[in-house]
Amino acid sequence: MALMTWKEVEEAVANDAGILLPIGATEQHGLHLPLCTDSYFPREVALEIADETNMVVAPTICYGYRSRPLSGGGQAFPGTTSISGATLMAEVQDLLEEFIRHGFRKIALYSWHWENQNFIYEAAFLVSRSHPEVKIAVIESAFEHFSKETMELLFSGDSFPGWAREHASIVETSLMLYKKPEWVLMDRAVNDQSEEYPCYDILPIPSTFYPKSGSLWHAAKGSREKGEAAWHEIIEWVKSILLKEFPN
Amino acid sequence: MALMTWKEVEEAVANDAGILLPIGATEQHGLHLPLCTDSYFPREVALEIADETNMVVAPTICYGYRSRPLSGGGQAFPGTTSISGATLMAEVQDLLEEFIRHGFRKIALYSWHWENQNFIYEAAFLVSRSHPEVKIAVIESAFEHFSKETMELLFSGDSFPGWAREHASIVETSLMLYKKPEWVLMDRAVNDQSEEYPCYDILPIPSTFYPKSGSLWHAAKGSREKGEAAWHEIIEWVKSILLKEFPN
Amino acid sequence: MALMTWKEVEEAVANDAGILLPIGATEQHGLHLPLCTDSYFPREVALEIADETNMVVAPTICYGYRSRPLSGGGQAFPGTTSISGATLMAEVQDLLEEFIRHGFRKIALYSWHWENQNFIYEAAFLVSRSHPEVKIAVIESAFEHFSKETMELLFSGDSFPGWAREHASIVETSLMLYKKPEWVLMDRAVNDQSEEYPCYDILPIPSTFYPKSGSLWHAAKGSREKGEAAWHEIIEWVKSILLKEFPN
Amino acid sequence: MALMTWKEVEEAVANDAGILLPIGATEQHGLHLPLCTDSYFPREVALEIADETNMVVAPTICYGYRSRPLSGGGQAFPGTTSISGATLMAEVQDLLEEFIRHGFRKIALYSWHWENQNFIYEAAFLVSRSHPEVKIAVIESAFEHFSKETMELLFSGDSFPGWAREHASIVETSLMLYKKPEWVLMDRAVNDQSEEYPCYDILPIPSTFYPKSGSLWHAAKGSREKGEAAWHEIIEWVKSILLKEFPN
Amino acid sequence: MALMTWKEVEEAVANDAGILLPIGATEQHGLHLPLCTDSYFPREVALEIADETNMVVAPTICYGYRSRPLSGGGQAFPGTTSISGATLMAEVQDLLEEFIRHGFRKIALYSWHWENQNFIYEAAFLVSRSHPEVKIAVIESAFEHFSKETMELLFSGDSFPGWAREHASIVETSLMLYKKPEWVLMDRAVNDQSEEYPCYDILPIPSTFYPKSGSLWHAAKGSREKGEAAWHEIIEWVKSILLKEFPN
Amino acid sequence: MALMTWKEVEEAVANDAGILLPIGATEQHGLHLPLCTDSYFPREVALEIADETNMVVAPTICYGYRSRPLSGGGQAFPGTTSISGATLMAEVQDLLEEFIRHGFRKIALYSWHWENQNFIYEAAFLVSRSHPEVKIAVIESAFEHFSKETMELLFSGDSFPGWAREHASIVETSLMLYKKPEWVLMDRAVNDQSEEYPCYDILPIPSTFYPKSGSLWHAAKGSREKGEAAWHEIIEWVKSILLKEFPN
Repeated sequence: MALMTWKEVEEAVANDAGILLPIGATEQHGLHLPLCTDSYFPREVALEIADETNMVVAPTICYGYRSRPLSGGGQAFPGTTSISGATLMAEVQDLLEEFIRHGFRKIALYSWHWENQNFIYEAAFLVSRSHPEVKIAVIESAFEHFSKETMELLFSGDSFPGWAREHASIVETSLMLYKKPEWVLMDRAVNDQSEEYPCYDILPIPSTFYPKSGSLWHAAKGSREKGEAAWHEIIEWVKSILLKEFPN
Repeated sequence: MALMTWKEVEEAVANDAGILLPIGATEQHGLHLPLCTDSYFPREVALEIADETNMVVAPTICYGYRSRPLSGGGQAFPGTTSISGATLMAEVQDLLEEFIRHGFRKIALYSWHWENQNFIYEAAFLVSRSHPEVKIAVIESAFEHFSKETMELLFSGDSFPGWAREHASIVETSLMLYKKPEWVLMDRAVNDQSEEYPCYDILPIPSTFYPKSGSLWHAAKGSREKGEAAWHEIIEWVKSILLKEFPN
Repeated sequence: MALMTWKEVEEAVANDAGILLPIGATEQHGLHLPLCTDSYFPREVALEIADETNMVVAPTICYGYRSRPLSGGGQAFPGTTSISGATLMAEVQDLLEEFIRHGFRKIALYSWHWENQNFIYEAAFLVSRSHPEVKIAVIESAFEHFSKETMELLFSGDSFPGWAREHASIVETSLMLYKKPEWVLMDRAVNDQSEEYPCYDILPIPSTFYPKSGSLWHAAKGSREKGEAAWHEIIEWVKSILLKEFPN
Repeated sequence: MALMTWKEVEEAVANDAGILLPIGATEQHGLHLPLCTDSYFPREVALEIADETNMVVAPTICYGYRSRPLSGGGQAFPGTTSISGATLMAEVQDLLEEFIRHGFRKIALYSWHWENQNFIYEAAFLVSRSHPEVKIAVIESAFEHFSKETMELLFSGDSFPGWAREHASIVETSLMLYKKPEWVLMDRAVNDQSEEYPCYDILPIPSTFYPKSGSLWHAAKGSREKGEAAWHEIIEWVKSILLKEFPN
Repeated sequence: MALMTWKEVEEAVANDAGILLPIGATEQHGLHLPLCTDSYFPREVALEIADETNMVVAPTICYGYRSRPLSGGGQAFPGTTSISGATLMAEVQDLLEEFIRHGFRKIALYSWHWENQNFIYEAAFLVSRSHPEVKIAVIESAFEHFSKETMELLFSGDSFPGWAREHASIVETSLMLYKKPEWVLMDRAVNDQSEEYPCYDILPIPSTFYPKSGSLWHAAKGSREKGEAAWHEIIEWVKSILLKEFPN
Repeated sequence: MALMTWKEVEEAVANDAGILLPIGATEQHGLHLPLCTDSYFPREVALEIADETNMVVAPTICYGYRSRPLSGGGQAFPGTTSISGATLMAEVQDLLEEFIRHGFRKIALYSWHWENQNFIYEAAFLVSRSHPEVKIAVIESAFEHFSKETMELLFSGDSFPGWAREHASIVETSLMLYKKPEWVLMDRAVNDQSEEYPCYDILPIPSTFYPKSGSLWHAAKGSREKGEAAWHEIIEWVKSILLKEFPN
């Protein structure tokens, strides 16, 4: 949508297009991945499937909710630039209302950053309550799961630590090596882990809850090949949701 | 704390006690469990471990964030009485500030209702930012996992659908049969499931996303024995967190 | 409602029931009464009259607006755990909207805690503005007045200090001795009063504006007999309002 | 303060002056009194006592919280122009912070309009929490009570209905006849009363809860003589508070 | 409206009158003009044209958004008493909703204080969105421009610094000398200017961005004659807008 | 910053770098320019001067305050996707607080979109109030003015309509032809103007206040040559501000 004129948006609406809003974050991704990682990926996914799903892609929300230590390293890292839950809800609400004013009746939110959860849903819920005629898909995780083959490729000979902990680690490193290798400082990628990995949070965040590097798990094991396999499954997954929920 | 006088609270603080706030919901729990299920359990856990952990138990927050279809049936059921994300954040923030004014320096939030996630954390984060001298534990799930034996007991001969889907089903029914059998209308308990169980949400909520009964999975398979086993593991788990983080 | 299933709520609505929300506080009540006093009483009143008035009783709001020195001792006591005016308004608004979604068209708010005044009304006003089809009764005082006989019984040989000042004093002590004698530490009850009792407030709260004990007046003069008389008049008063405004 | 230059405010602060903020409303006052009645009186009181109490008078807040039927006729009258509770709190908070920035350490809020209660207190409470070095007097009623002689003069041969109900009736009519007779349409003043005068509220407001004229009680019995007596007692009362709390 | 009864407002609405809300500020205006300057002028303009344009004049909003250094000297002066942007928006929104409830369908906002810009517009926008049947004129500048003759009279032999910088300077001094000479301390009026006058802002405000006196430009050059000429053009300008947009 | 790792941000802070936040909008820019015009330009300016001024460039805020008819065509166009004033203030406040947490002490906000004015300033003001040790430059206009030569080049033989009206017209078209000619649909560029161009606003927005094309003035007169001249002056202007206010 960023590169369209208002007239072209009007035509897309007339053509029964939907609109897809990628939601990311500006968050530390270890010593080797850029801060825009969580914003870049959902935007790329969106652009890649836009035509096939007849979706206009809105400008990405680049600032997301605060990083949490067990899924993003937490708010202690410089560079991680977050907005509050209240601000995120307000922004998504405003944008949904605008999309509806434009005439869109098929709206999808696709968030890569786990911590945006619930805030995005609440915004969509509030708007939906007064616009029941609009269908809104809320996709709050980057992907669901991978095929057995891809899981083996990704974590071969390594235990799978759970998706939350896979932050700035094998999957994201691999995806970036596949899509934007020039952005990856692979020589700085480390296999790291925090001293503790509990299932609750403590505030202020104890330094034992996150690793110094910012990679919560094994970043050095990422590879272009792994990224390619994962990318295609992600693309297929998001596409299948949109085609199912917003058939043309 | 509800039954204490202000003087007794003052003494508890002087005695280096912590404070534990149970956070629940008023949410449909199938045809057989009461609306207070998510509020009753965390309050009971809190009361049971209060002495051993030297924690004062604050009055339970009985109204939680909106039920979501894939983990609670969603907001279409009468009886489910929810507050917005903004209100929940404000309430938890206010209470944390009060606990700190009382003199407490060890605070634990224990939420049974999955949907309260992130809103509780944000409230704790905001308060913690201006009170770094206070330690706050944020426990946003009712339990972590059960032992292999208990899992087999709970789901023997049945596939495990994931914890989110286990709403008003085997575990909660069993726990209530163990703790308050008189509140369970066991003859109405059903093994149910929604037509679809996707990994994203649609608004307005499609009726295929939740089962008519409100039990997202197999409620009729609950038993007092299962409840007893699960209850003891939950008690041990929460107790171990508090003892570890707030040693006396 | 806490102990009902969603189905039972649905049936109550179909049966033209109303809903009654007790609103209390967690506030110091002298050296002898528990912090839950202001929450316990409205809940008990509600439960006692629910059947006769065909009202479902919603879970009590246990945290109310800040205690003020001239009617509750003020915010200097540990244990008094309050929420801000903004939070209270938000919570009542959210709950009213939920009751309306359930299908209730007769709603009553009954607050025991004087300081909740105006915040409750504003919440009801805002919801009513967009739901003129729903009738909402806003009862912002615990009781109106007592019969001459009961007044004589209550304050015999003692001057009546006004209801605001009767906090944690004769009436509340007597009511609790009648309803829950096991919660009253009667040997700690004192006849107290502040050095000054002006008709305005000063912030920060001067220590001369409230008595050290937290009983603003004569607590030691409470008795079970006085409590019984007062309780019955309160019950009749609230019942008469509901029967008049929500006839079946 | 409206007519002072910034330099004169600076000098007043250097001279240890306090600041007095009159808070009113724009509210119907029957068929015979102007909408500014509740704003005019506190401003006049403030100006009359400013010199003796060394207080600077800030511009009056002319828009207050919503009129309630039992004390102001309610929000059904055209002309009654109110702001929400949230807005009133925000405005008073902002102004208090500004007064503190100017250097004032003695601040008084004087509200004539009963419905502003609690909202004003909450604003002052919030500001006081972060500025404990400043003393704030919160006067939320126009007057406390009158001497026996004045009460007899005011209500001779008439029962006293309580101050809330005395809206746009004997006292306010008399005061205006004394201070601004040219603003009183005395030939339109009526002795009125609502069909019912309960001790709770109903929303939407029933037409039986307020009289058609807007005078909740006996306006035609007002007189200049009554106004003069009442005015002097009010002046003395407010002055005595300020002299006691803010001695020079 | 302040001096009208509610009945007279009702009649004005029946008579198809509009309503005009003057919006000002309490802001330093140099060593010689009163703090109410920005509130007094729009109120006077409104009252002077009310009859001819069939507009009721609402009580003036006396507290406006924060003063900015390049157009009002900034928030460093004692006496300048501002409200936040959020509060100003809330107040204007509330008032617009009240005017609409009264029955007005022609509403004009007229702000003298430049800094109120955008906040006023946003408030009007939000209300307009749900009341498209009401026409709202938003006049966010005190005047547009003057005739060539008046400009020559005002700035003869002096360069014109732009309207923002003309704060508390020639035009406002002249207008006050014409309308309220008794409020002008002309012997303290100075021709001043800040060390720098950039086209951006720095926070905290550098002392080089505003002159010590508070007059951003040449106040001593004001005269009654200049004021008279300017006043008449302003009156004509506002009147012409209202007559064009709200013809009778 | 988007492409930096958290470590590189840490190093920039250690190296005394500042941070520059470009603020734009997603707003219609006629039939020939993309919706991202107001976001693209400030980002490009920022990137071009970042090294020379030792500023890190934060990810651009792509959604700005509502378009106003006299400076952007208004909210009637599809494609114009705006956020409310409250949301914009919240977002800028959150980001400023994050930059300060990272360690930045030199912060610049550079907004291309005129309508963001005052909201940005308020956010910066609020943050500055509690962080007086940080210097914040608030640049709320895209450029100040151009040299006489450039003005003649831009508007030769054409009257200059004022900068607000120059939306999607000569300057922006020329700049885009210089920077991204492939984004300009020059064959659709028109010289347009609204029927009326008043100095106040009316809501709902009358269709006479904006031209059908969305170009408020003469877009077809744009040229690459004009763009080049304007671009260089803009670059120099922003650079000069940053070098003056944040010398190294």
